[in-house]
Amino acid sequence: MSTDTPLGIAVIGTGRMGADHIRRIDTVTNGARVAAVADIDPDRAAHAAHGIEGCTPYTDPAAAMADPAVDAVLIASPGAAHEAALMAAFDRGLPVLCEKPLTPDAESALRVVEAEARLGRRLVQVGFMRRYDTGYLRLKQLLDSGAHGRTLMLHHKHRNPATPPGFTDANLINDSVVHEIDVTRWLLGTEITAVHVLRPTPSSAAPEGLGDPQLVLFETADGQICDTELFQNCGFGYQVGCEAVGETGTARTGDDHGLLVNADGRWGGTIPPGYVERFADAYDRQVQRWVDATRRGVVKGPGCWDGYAAAAACAAGVRAQTTGARATVELAERPDLYR
Amino acid sequence: MSTDTPLGIAVIGTGRMGADHIRRIDTVTNGARVAAVADIDPDRAAHAAHGIEGCTPYTDPAAAMADPAVDAVLIASPGAAHEAALMAAFDRGLPVLCEKPLTPDAESALRVVEAEARLGRRLVQVGFMRRYDTGYLRLKQLLDSGAHGRTLMLHHKHRNPATPPGFTDANLINDSVVHEIDVTRWLLGTEITAVHVLRPTPSSAAPEGLGDPQLVLFETADGQICDTELFQNCGFGYQVGCEAVGETGTARTGDDHGLLVNADGRWGGTIPPGYVERFADAYDRQVQRWVDATRRGVVKGPGCWDGYAAAAACAAGVRAQTTGARATVELAERPDLYR
Amino acid sequence: MSTDTPLGIAVIGTGRMGADHIRRIDTVTNGARVAAVADIDPDRAAHAAHGIEGCTPYTDPAAAMADPAVDAVLIASPGAAHEAALMAAFDRGLPVLCEKPLTPDAESALRVVEAEARLGRRLVQVGFMRRYDTGYLRLKQLLDSGAHGRTLMLHHKHRNPATPPGFTDANLINDSVVHEIDVTRWLLGTEITAVHVLRPTPSSAAPEGLGDPQLVLFETADGQICDTELFQNCGFGYQVGCEAVGETGTARTGDDHGLLVNADGRWGGTIPPGYVERFADAYDRQVQRWVDATRRGVVKGPGCWDGYAAAAACAAGVRAQTTGARATVELAERPDLYR
Amino acid sequence: MSTDTPLGIAVIGTGRMGADHIRRIDTVTNGARVAAVADIDPDRAAHAAHGIEGCTPYTDPAAAMADPAVDAVLIASPGAAHEAALMAAFDRGLPVLCEKPLTPDAESALRVVEAEARLGRRLVQVGFMRRYDTGYLRLKQLLDSGAHGRTLMLHHKHRNPATPPGFTDANLINDSVVHEIDVTRWLLGTEITAVHVLRPTPSSAAPEGLGDPQLVLFETADGQICDTELFQNCGFGYQVGCEAVGETGTARTGDDHGLLVNADGRWGGTIPPGYVERFADAYDRQVQRWVDATRRGVVKGPGCWDGYAAAAACAAGVRAQTTGARATVELAERPDLYR
Repeated sequence: MSTDTPLGIAVIGTGRMGADHIRRIDTVTNGARVAAVADIDPDRAAHAAHGIEGCTPYTDPAAAMADPAVDAVLIASPGAAHEAALMAAFDRGLPVLCEKPLTPDAESALRVVEAEARLGRRLVQVGFMRRYDTGYLRLKQLLDSGAHGRTLMLHHKHRNPATPPGFTDANLINDSVVHEIDVTRWLLGTEITAVHVLRPTPSSAAPEGLGDPQLVLFETADGQICDTELFQNCGFGYQVGCEAVGETGTARTGDDHGLLVNADGRWGGTIPPGYVERFADAYDRQVQRWVDATRRGVVKGPGCWDGYAAAAACAAGVRAQTTGARATVELAERPDLYR
Repeated sequence: MSTDTPLGIAVIGTGRMGADHIRRIDTVTNGARVAAVADIDPDRAAHAAHGIEGCTPYTDPAAAMADPAVDAVLIASPGAAHEAALMAAFDRGLPVLCEKPLTPDAESALRVVEAEARLGRRLVQVGFMRRYDTGYLRLKQLLDSGAHGRTLMLHHKHRNPATPPGFTDANLINDSVVHEIDVTRWLLGTEITAVHVLRPTPSSAAPEGLGDPQLVLFETADGQICDTELFQNCGFGYQVGCEAVGETGTARTGDDHGLLVNADGRWGGTIPPGYVERFADAYDRQVQRWVDATRRGVVKGPGCWDGYAAAAACAAGVRAQTTGARATVELAERPDLYR
Repeated sequence: MSTDTPLGIAVIGTGRMGADHIRRIDTVTNGARVAAVADIDPDRAAHAAHGIEGCTPYTDPAAAMADPAVDAVLIASPGAAHEAALMAAFDRGLPVLCEKPLTPDAESALRVVEAEARLGRRLVQVGFMRRYDTGYLRLKQLLDSGAHGRTLMLHHKHRNPATPPGFTDANLINDSVVHEIDVTRWLLGTEITAVHVLRPTPSSAAPEGLGDPQLVLFETADGQICDTELFQNCGFGYQVGCEAVGETGTARTGDDHGLLVNADGRWGGTIPPGYVERFADAYDRQVQRWVDATRRGVVKGPGCWDGYAAAAACAAGVRAQTTGARATVELAERPDLYR
Repeated sequence: MSTDTPLGIAVIGTGRMGADHIRRIDTVTNGARVAAVADIDPDRAAHAAHGIEGCTPYTDPAAAMADPAVDAVLIASPGAAHEAALMAAFDRGLPVLCEKPLTPDAESALRVVEAEARLGRRLVQVGFMRRYDTGYLRLKQLLDSGAHGRTLMLHHKHRNPATPPGFTDANLINDSVVHEIDVTRWLLGTEITAVHVLRPTPSSAAPEGLGDPQLVLFETADGQICDTELFQNCGFGYQVGCEAVGETGTARTGDDHGLLVNADGRWGGTIPPGYVERFADAYDRQVQRWVDATRRGVVKGPGCWDGYAAAAACAAGVRAQTTGARATVELAERPDLYR
């Protein structure tokens, strides 16, 4: 049961994701309120705070965190600003929900891991929201039950209608495949040890210079092989799914499609246009679970180590893209805090 | 955007549904809190209020509604107690979410309609939660779009693993088919004018005296024909769905099944055991929408007229069961408040 | 194992269905050949026989049956000509595959039944080809296995893009629902005892005067209730299916749809345009099974009694359409030959 | 239209596949008959010929081919005997349907290619029966239509309940993946240029020494990347499917599952136990198409070059299994006969 006071949250960054989280906390999440917002652009900060009772706008993340009404921090600023914001939260001992990526590269992610380890207690949850999608949760539950024996392979699909301008091969790994990296680690409860990238002739719909689609392969410490079809300019919609192949059975999520329609000589239905529609429930559930855990004083979701391990696997992925060869994932030793 | 004070709700009745709503408001719903609970059993009331900050237990519903912290009422007591509770809420001008049925029969439901009409403003939302299920919402949206022309027929399915002890033929209509009655009226935006019930030889799994399954047919004021397979002792799980047949296309909800599994010589997945699992999201969404609307001072969901019209159609259904013949639905004139 | 000589078949009627059967026997069916064709139009008969080694064209069906190369008869002429052709085949003791309907009404069908009964041995198979569709066969096998207990209900769907010119309400029963009548009798192994027809406001796509769609209800001698959505101007394609509701489970055929496509913001696939495409395999299998049985000297498929019983149920259906009331099926006593 | 005389076929080898083909030609295929059978075991040959009118048993394949009643040859003997049988058929200029593999290795397959090329006309069709499966045919048709632009990737699945005793890693390629090799070449109309094999920790259900499952990757001359999940001891049934990823859409075959059943808390259906059940129609269609083409004096299906190219890709696959590295496919120059 809850205590009477809602959790006061400072939302750092009020761009697309930040604004969406502010709306969520204000109108969907139980037991929390937006106590402060921070954006480098004072107008945007003021606009975001407008109409929310008791919400103060700031331009400096650290100042927002110092607001006495603030009990916890949600970081939704660009990835390059995450490290500083995380360190500021560590200084104040504030619990954090940090949008992915934890930081833009493995080196900085490792610094965050080490800082939190020095602190001696976990404060950070990383925003890998697929862990809160009903389908992935059911898949995880099935794999953990052992009903199909050991898991031997995963087949991921990750399709998106189109990439934003300036999207690079490295973005394909760091911004898209990073989800399959996290899901793989989480579903299998192990680390990715090597990455291999195979590149077909790109689609004519792929922007000049972008090798889309790609087939990305993971090896894990437990001997599993996982493949991901990554296709970010497929045109037809946003589609994400995973089939887990166990010793005695397989299970697949991502095929539920809502309304079945017969019309115009065709049966079928619509495909959602983007991840916001596809994972709306998962985003809601992620924030609610984080608020619930935070009010109980615990951290339950993916943490700094998960953010770091994903960054390290991404680094190997980018190397594998470039060389065309298998790249091994180099991981620091895991601090006791994360065991 | 919300105001700062959460809506204080008095929950009347703390049995299975009441307790579930208390948990929901306390831990899921944004912008609301349980301010009072009422149960004829003082121990149960006290138990329900325990651990919720600022929640006072009562044995008298009217006393709970008189608590100054109470802004709105959620009625989850047995149906026979609804009329008195509704009248008490009307006395205080409190907004109400009333679990279905509005009242146990058409006569008492009409008295509630007339009382609210005299009041001159709508206060009551009735708990027809299927209107908040994603699949039914998408179906409604499609029908309203006119993409398939006029709707000509609906095919409903309503299957349940087993009936509780003492369940009668009348319960089949009043407690089960009542959902198809409401969904039909809502999806088609019209009234049901006649009901016909066809009864096959009952399943050997049906309790002695219960004619299960049944095929229940509705005629509507707009000339549609709707059929419902009602099978409440099917054994295999809880399954609810609807296909709408339009002039140029059909659309079906209720076939989404989550995880697809291959194992043991079979493909497929699991069927939920009951309505709580099947409609968990719909219950959450219903209460959130009611709280949101109430805080804005409006009533958006199904109201007293819907509760009454459903009761009138149920009465016709029970007559049709008994006589084996077509029974017409007798409706009072619709007060202006509900036009 | 086969004998060396192929079965010589006389095909009576060389219109659309006749021509298709000639092609089938000539190029698909094992162990048979087209030995003679008959058409009232001599040019059409000659055209149909052209290029088929050893095939003689006739204008008189009885003359074709008298050809010494003829061992069996396939009747594909208009329904009004069936009775005379069947009697001619009876005169010669020739096995017959007779396209549905056996004859156009129950009275003439009963005369055929009586004639065959007098003959004292079964010669006729009626062309209810759905009994040879893989899906319906699997459904039949499952029901017969008793895996789901007694069957309590059937839900049929029968959709067609558009009716031919001049199609009447009676055609809806005699030419379309006749298939559901046969499938119901066959799947359940019982007789239909009463028919009821409910008529929604017709689709604007239905030709003037045609009440399309309709909901047709059967009661059976074993206490089952069966419903058929009959929609013959649905526009979007040809769709046929059946769900059988047993005491402990249900089974559905007609949802298999071939290739699954993701494109243009939609998932799904195509719907076949007509029964020829949908039941191509069933037609092939029907003729092959008939040839195989005939060469072994036996009759295995639906016979004259099935043709008569379907005609009697159709007659009740047409009465039910007209009166809006339940119409009972009147059946003559079943001759011993068909027990 | 057919000529009057059925094609006289010599079936070489009367083991499981040979016996099944004899039954098929005798009872299913139109326009053909079994004129001779050959088996090294005279009792088995006599048993196979028994009861078939005009069928002579032999122990020597060449003698069977010399029978004056023989017009064409179906080779279903063990792979090691294929080369000699093919050469014997070439000597007599007889059309051949040769079960896969054409021969057991690329070297011998190349000798057959060269022999046929010297002959200057095509006589041989190789038994890659998936090309006759309705689903794969529809997929091929869609890809060829260009509706989804160029094809970029294929995802194959090939699951089998259990391997026979003595099955080796090389068998996984030569007997199982060979189908995906042929389907890939056929669907894409190009050659496979390299193979890569990734091996997870084997399933505990895999026999000692067999690395099952495996992930087999192809690169093609047109720049496509194709993956195959090969899992031959999955236990739960036989499942084969393929998804083609085009520039603007994807299409998948292999998900059609027949009857949908609700029972025992589960929805779903059965998985066929083996390839004979799964591809029964494809085998029938393959032989019928071969007979039809042969009677018209043409060769339409996959030929010696396809058999050789598959063998060469298999050789690369076995090398890739052993080394763990990418292995290039080495192909001889394609003779003009196969352009």
